[in-house]
Amino acid sequence: MDVDALVMGVLAGDARAVARAISLVEDGRAELPALSAGIYASTGTAATVGLTGAPGVGKSTLAGALVRVARAAGRRVAVLAVDPTSPYTGGALLGDRVRMQEHATDPDVFIRSMATRGHLGGMALAAPEAVRILDAAGYDLVVVETVGVGQAEVDVAAATDTALVVLAPGLGDAVQMAKAGILEVADVFVVNKADRPGAADVERELQQMLQLGATHEWEPPVLTTSAIEPEGVEELWVAVERHRAWLVDSGTLDAKRTARLLREVEALAAERFKLATAEALEAGGDVATRLLERSVDPYAAADALLGRIAPQE
Amino acid sequence: MDVDALVMGVLAGDARAVARAISLVEDGRAELPALSAGIYASTGTAATVGLTGAPGVGKSTLAGALVRVARAAGRRVAVLAVDPTSPYTGGALLGDRVRMQEHATDPDVFIRSMATRGHLGGMALAAPEAVRILDAAGYDLVVVETVGVGQAEVDVAAATDTALVVLAPGLGDAVQMAKAGILEVADVFVVNKADRPGAADVERELQQMLQLGATHEWEPPVLTTSAIEPEGVEELWVAVERHRAWLVDSGTLDAKRTARLLREVEALAAERFKLATAEALEAGGDVATRLLERSVDPYAAADALLGRIAPQE
Repeated sequence: MDVDALVMGVLAGDARAVARAISLVEDGRAELPALSAGIYASTGTAATVGLTGAPGVGKSTLAGALVRVARAAGRRVAVLAVDPTSPYTGGALLGDRVRMQEHATDPDVFIRSMATRGHLGGMALAAPEAVRILDAAGYDLVVVETVGVGQAEVDVAAATDTALVVLAPGLGDAVQMAKAGILEVADVFVVNKADRPGAADVERELQQMLQLGATHEWEPPVLTTSAIEPEGVEELWVAVERHRAWLVDSGTLDAKRTARLLREVEALAAERFKLATAEALEAGGDVATRLLERSVDPYAAADALLGRIAPQE
Repeated sequence: MDVDALVMGVLAGDARAVARAISLVEDGRAELPALSAGIYASTGTAATVGLTGAPGVGKSTLAGALVRVARAAGRRVAVLAVDPTSPYTGGALLGDRVRMQEHATDPDVFIRSMATRGHLGGMALAAPEAVRILDAAGYDLVVVETVGVGQAEVDVAAATDTALVVLAPGLGDAVQMAKAGILEVADVFVVNKADRPGAADVERELQQMLQLGATHEWEPPVLTTSAIEPEGVEELWVAVERHRAWLVDSGTLDAKRTARLLREVEALAAERFKLATAEALEAGGDVATRLLERSVDPYAAADALLGRIAPQE
C-alpha cells in the first residue's frame, strides 16, 4: 500500500481515501504508524462529540438530527459509529446507516461504521486514530456514536471533547449508568424521546443523581429532545457549542487533550512491549528451562526480560 | 520487614509465617520479589487442585470433604479461598472458614481466604505466588477455591495442575459455563448435590456438551457427589489422583507448568513496564508538550517511550 498517496488523499478530504485509512486502522495494519505520522500535524481543529447511551435510546436518530443542524450551520460533519464489543459491525450499525440516508448524497457528510478486527489495542486505541483521520480530512465536527454503555464505550466517549450521554424513558436507567461510570464522563445529558410517558421521571431521577455528585467547574446541563419530531435539537446544538466555548476559554480543551494523548501513548507503548516480550520469550527457550529447573524465579525472570528488551540506565 | 526470617519461617512450615507471607502477596509489598526468590527453589512438589463453579454449588463443603480424604491419606493440606472480584474477602469466604471448622485444630491443615488489595497484577498474578508459598511450606496438596465462574476465576483455575469444575442441579448451568470458557479448563467435572432432583439432567446435559467438544488426550471424567453426606468423595479423590498420575506419566505436568510460568513472567514484565512508562511520562513533561504542539504523533511517542525505557539493539 502506498501510504504517502493515502495520506495525501486524506489531507485532500477524499472520502475514498478516508474510508481506506479507517479500514487500515480497523485491521491494525503495519502501515498505521506511517499513516499516523503523516496526518498528525493536520489534526486538532475538529470538534469531537461522543454519543453514548443504552441501545434503543435513539442515538442514531439524534446523530442524524445533529448532522442536520450542523450542516445548516455550514459545518462539514463525520459520524463514526463504533462497536467496541464486536470484531464485526453488526446489524445495529448497518441500521444506523439506513437512518442516515438523508445525508447520503451530501458530499460534506461522511458516515462510517467501525469495528476492530486486527488493532491490538482494541477500540480504545483504534477509535482516536480514526477520529484523527476524519479531523485531518477537514471535517469540522466528528460525532462518535457507540452501541452501548459498557466500559469500552465509556473509554471511547471519554476520548471525545464533548461527551453526550443519552437516556430515554424505560431505557438507560441512571443508576445503571452510574454503575458503569458513564455519568462521570458526561458533559451534556440528553433525555431523548421526551414525548414518551416517563420522560419527566427520567429527568428528575437524573437531576437527583447529579446533585449527589461532586460539583465541577462545568456543570453538565440536562436537555430534553424528541429527535424524530425533531424537538430540542437546536437547543442541544447550542449546549454543545457552549461546552466547546467553555473548553477553549478555560484552557480545559488542551489539558483534556494532553491527558488523553498521554494515556494513548502509554497504552500504545504497552501493546508494543507485550509483542516484544512474547517474541523474546519465544526466542529465549532457556527462560522456560530455568523456570522449570527452579534456578530463576518468575519475578527475577520478569526483570531479566524487562532488562533484555529494556536495558535500564 | 525481615524477608529472610519470613522465608525461613515459610520453609519451616510455620503457619504464622505462611499467613504473613500471603498477606504480603495480597498487599503487593515491595518485599515480594525477595520473598519469591527465597522460596522458589523449594516449590514444585505440591499437587495443586482448583475448585471452580457457580456460587451455591457446594464448593466449600466439597473442599472440606476433600481435605478429610486427603488427611486420611496422610497428606498435609492447604485451602486457599480466592475472591478475584473484590479487594476485600467478603461474607462468602468467611462462611467457608466456618464450614472448615472441623479442620481448625489440625496443624497439618491450613485454611486461608485471599483478596488482592495492592498486587498490581490482580489475582491472576497474586494467586500463583500464594500457592507457591503454601507449596514451599510443605503442604502436599493445595486446594484453590474460587467464588464464581467469571474470567478471573477461569484464570485462577487454569493456574492449578488439576482443575475441578463443580455443577449442581439448578445452579451453574453447563451452557453458561461454556460461554465463560470454564469447561475448557476442566480436568474433572463434579456434579454435586447428587441427591437433589435434577442431578441426572445436569449430568446428561454436561455429557452432551462434552461430546460436542474436541477430543483430548485426557478425557475429563464426570463424577457425582453429595459432599454433605458425604458420598462420592472417595471416588473424586481417586479421579484427582488418576489425573495427577497421568500428568506426570505423560510429561504434561512439566509442559503445563512451563506454559503457566511463562505466561506469569510475561504478565509480571508487562506490569513492571506499565509502572516504568507511567514514571517516564511523569518525568518527561516535554512529551505532552510535543504531542499537543503536534510535533510528534502518538505512535512515534510510544516508540520513543519504549526506546527510552528499552533501547532495542
